[in-house]
Amino acid sequence: MKMQMNDYIKLVDEKLDEFMPIQYPDDIFKAMKYTVTLQGKRLRPVMCLETCRMFGGNFEDAIPTACAIEMLHAQTLIHDDLPCMDNDDYRRGKLTNHKVFGEANAVLAGDALLTFAPQLIVKNSKKLGAEKLINILEEYFHAAGAFGVIAGQVIDIESERATSKIPDPEKTLEYIHTHKTADLFKLALRSGAIIADATEKELEEITEFGQCMGVAFQIADDILDETSTFDEMGKTMGKDKDAGKLTYTSLYGLEKSKKDLNEKLDKCLDILHKNNLKSEVFEQILEKIRIK
Amino acid sequence: MKMQMNDYIKLVDEKLDEFMPIQYPDDIFKAMKYTVTLQGKRLRPVMCLETCRMFGGNFEDAIPTACAIEMLHAQTLIHDDLPCMDNDDYRRGKLTNHKVFGEANAVLAGDALLTFAPQLIVKNSKKLGAEKLINILEEYFHAAGAFGVIAGQVIDIESERATSKIPDPEKTLEYIHTHKTADLFKLALRSGAIIADATEKELEEITEFGQCMGVAFQIADDILDETSTFDEMGKTMGKDKDAGKLTYTSLYGLEKSKKDLNEKLDKCLDILHKNNLKSEVFEQILEKIRIK
Repeated sequence: MKMQMNDYIKLVDEKLDEFMPIQYPDDIFKAMKYTVTLQGKRLRPVMCLETCRMFGGNFEDAIPTACAIEMLHAQTLIHDDLPCMDNDDYRRGKLTNHKVFGEANAVLAGDALLTFAPQLIVKNSKKLGAEKLINILEEYFHAAGAFGVIAGQVIDIESERATSKIPDPEKTLEYIHTHKTADLFKLALRSGAIIADATEKELEEITEFGQCMGVAFQIADDILDETSTFDEMGKTMGKDKDAGKLTYTSLYGLEKSKKDLNEKLDKCLDILHKNNLKSEVFEQILEKIRIK
Repeated sequence: MKMQMNDYIKLVDEKLDEFMPIQYPDDIFKAMKYTVTLQGKRLRPVMCLETCRMFGGNFEDAIPTACAIEMLHAQTLIHDDLPCMDNDDYRRGKLTNHKVFGEANAVLAGDALLTFAPQLIVKNSKKLGAEKLINILEEYFHAAGAFGVIAGQVIDIESERATSKIPDPEKTLEYIHTHKTADLFKLALRSGAIIADATEKELEEITEFGQCMGVAFQIADDILDETSTFDEMGKTMGKDKDAGKLTYTSLYGLEKSKKDLNEKLDKCLDILHKNNLKSEVFEQILEKIRIK
């Protein structure tokens, strides 16, 4: 079955809703579900499903893992938005989790998602078999933990508080982008590939693609923070610049950022083509990230 | 090898240190390790190891799981102590995590532990085999998530904010104690039993024991909050009473609380004896919880 971008998004939205019935204690499930089901691009789960399909697997086998990765992503948003972190009031055009449910419940909703997500993978593991399940859990924990997204967030916060003291800002920024963003992209792609029984070589190819795409996505995000409005993005923009934060645009300027972004996106396309990785969906995603 | 309480504690302390080398980014690993390695009674990991031994298993096979449960416990302490939750400055006689590392890093250290703990179980699963590993992960996720400790914490916070409106305070308090405390006790006992290949009947017995002991422990905690000093307990006491919080003592008074505690502890002993569960260590733990 040929899946278009919108088919995947619709499927993911339905499954996220289905996997998260509101149960007692209602308040925690409502808070968890609120951010998970905010209208979003669903890039990570779509990437997981599409990779599985691309390598000859049945993308339906990857649905629980794809949804778990989206839940993990939502968890990082909930905690990143907290007053003690980025202190954001809006996300995707809606009030952030702590603004609706209070700080305590937002912390706990994030905590609960950090358990709910891998639990979902384990619960739905029968089709995968034990070996593949363990393999995927290892990938998941690596990306979710102190060597993955959390490493990116910690160094991001530190760099914000000490911009002038950063000895090697280029390297630091690359570290932040790699871990804060590319690690979850790579997790989505690699787990989809593992479910499809991809070869070691294919895993390497898709990892190179995920690293490139993750960094491109983050450069675009930095550009948009400077050039977009609240109405366009659904969150408060320009905060990074105001905070003197280390970003791609603060380091290289807006013009070079745009040039580098588009070069990165061309490189992502090259990786697909040279390895004969055929995916209209990935090409569409790359075009959506492009900024003219 | 016959293990005494102190042998187990020493072993757990050594292993917790060994499992958590400080790696880059240092700040997050230091924050994680700070609370995990605070001097503590190590009740949960000791209970896990001792149950494994009691049911004829090799307690060494349970070490990663026992340590993971202690890390999960430390995570709950870090987030519970945050200003938006219980706002505590001291824990086990030392400054709380956010007081040392700042709120943002304390949130992230807790998040990282929520991933690090089950990752530790998976990483060290070879000896257990896939089936037992999946079984233990299911137990772990249930106790750690929105039906377990988090459910207890959510209802605890809600009850604190609306004591007068609680329709059935006895039942609510039992719910809080069960989930906030007994669920991790049961996880420790059940996972130790599963590793030792305990029967379904033995699992039920040890679960009944864990429920009884968890509630007893929490009654004792509520009593001590009212009757102890900072120097005795290493944290600010009397806060629950000042906050008008729903506790065993606020509901039943100090005298009845003491009486009920000792009855509960006798019941725990009965459960051990009637099921022929022989453990000096468990009997010692029960005596330590007793308040004259």
